[in-house]
Amino acid sequence: MRKIIVIGIGAGNPDHMTVQAIAALNRLDLILIPRKPGQKDDLAEVRRDICRRFLTNPETRQIEFDLPVRAQQDDAYRQTVDDWHDAIAGAYADLLDRECGPAGTVGLLVWGDPSLYDSTLRILERLRALPEAALAIEVIPGVTSVQTLAASHRIPLNTIGGPVLLTTGRRLRQGVPADAETIVVMLDGACAFTTLPAAHYDIWWGAYLGMPDEILINGPLAEVSERIVRTRAGARARHGWIMDTYMLRRRANA
Amino acid sequence: MRKIIVIGIGAGNPDHMTVQAIAALNRLDLILIPRKPGQKDDLAEVRRDICRRFLTNPETRQIEFDLPVRAQQDDAYRQTVDDWHDAIAGAYADLLDRECGPAGTVGLLVWGDPSLYDSTLRILERLRALPEAALAIEVIPGVTSVQTLAASHRIPLNTIGGPVLLTTGRRLRQGVPADAETIVVMLDGACAFTTLPAAHYDIWWGAYLGMPDEILINGPLAEVSERIVRTRAGARARHGWIMDTYMLRRRANA
Repeated sequence: MRKIIVIGIGAGNPDHMTVQAIAALNRLDLILIPRKPGQKDDLAEVRRDICRRFLTNPETRQIEFDLPVRAQQDDAYRQTVDDWHDAIAGAYADLLDRECGPAGTVGLLVWGDPSLYDSTLRILERLRALPEAALAIEVIPGVTSVQTLAASHRIPLNTIGGPVLLTTGRRLRQGVPADAETIVVMLDGACAFTTLPAAHYDIWWGAYLGMPDEILINGPLAEVSERIVRTRAGARARHGWIMDTYMLRRRANA
Repeated sequence: MRKIIVIGIGAGNPDHMTVQAIAALNRLDLILIPRKPGQKDDLAEVRRDICRRFLTNPETRQIEFDLPVRAQQDDAYRQTVDDWHDAIAGAYADLLDRECGPAGTVGLLVWGDPSLYDSTLRILERLRALPEAALAIEVIPGVTSVQTLAASHRIPLNTIGGPVLLTTGRRLRQGVPADAETIVVMLDGACAFTTLPAAHYDIWWGAYLGMPDEILINGPLAEVSERIVRTRAGARARHGWIMDTYMLRRRANA
């Protein structure tokens, strides 16, 4: 049976690789490195860099492939994502047929951790559902951008015994649960924090976390919100892409 | 100035150590290893094991010390925790005075990640507030039991674009937010999932995650709840301690 190992590679700093992840990398016959066509490819480059630094098994092959392009239809978000995941599963199936023997072990290197706002495991379930695909899955956990955000700001996420809500920019725009004290926001392409009552929150924001270009800003949301928006736009223009994450904490007087 | 490096060591598997954490370990003058007096000391043993495997700097000293004992007063939870953290900060201050030069670098090895349900950073803020303590803090992120739970069950935490609530057993007993679709529960010493309407949830439970004795159970809560309670009690009696974590997902028909 073929096996796919989904390896969490951490949040941008190659030194986030765990001993377990490095060992898994070196058990692979084949590493699939996705490229996003037409985009600046810093993320593929992080994966290449990890292979250069940590791959010592001369038998392991690396193959790069172009990810299917995702349609942009905000009014049918779920359907668009479904179609895209089907297309990626199809691309994996083709690659396995062409490049991997019937008992081969294939690795996918996942930014952060495979459990959090990453679609790889969902896509592999689609692949397993295909008639010809007998497939074992193994998952290696990795450091996420959430933990990197907290580490770089040197803060805990939770208050003593308090809950933490992990959510997306899209959800944040739809409203914040009344009892949410600490909120960590991922996948926010458009500064959803600007839609909150700024006087009620403190924010700890970070971009390119764990990477040499890491940017950190924190303070009362009312004071730093505009600076984050401006900094983010400038950095995005300069790099051609941005990944950012932030924590919001409801202020005691809110 | 003294520096304290708070190092996330991962969730029980020494191979969760990151390259960054191993490098940090070897920059230390002193590693403080806490012992819980009167308890079986598997957790101290994990830290010793990590030092045996990854510490190559012959200059680095290890010192073990007894953690102050926490009072057991459920009706004044916050106060009890406050007092306990003060006592631990005092113990650190004494150890630094006795064992560490004025420009020394001291390491604390934190189970999982320092950002999530760990008090080390809060305790260090108390230490920094002491008059004589000029102290720099650095934090190295680590793999948490939450990610290890997801990896061992080979599941993502979030549904597509959906939120994830991280909370405690204590909070879960106080009620679940109506819109909480995915809930990850930590610090649950008494199977708080048994207080939920079992027909409404699926559960993915894990104990001793990442360790050789890892136990995993998952299924509809109504079907596996009793088995988890029984398994947990048996394992706890056998080992003398238990650490477990679980994810609840509201069922589509709930």
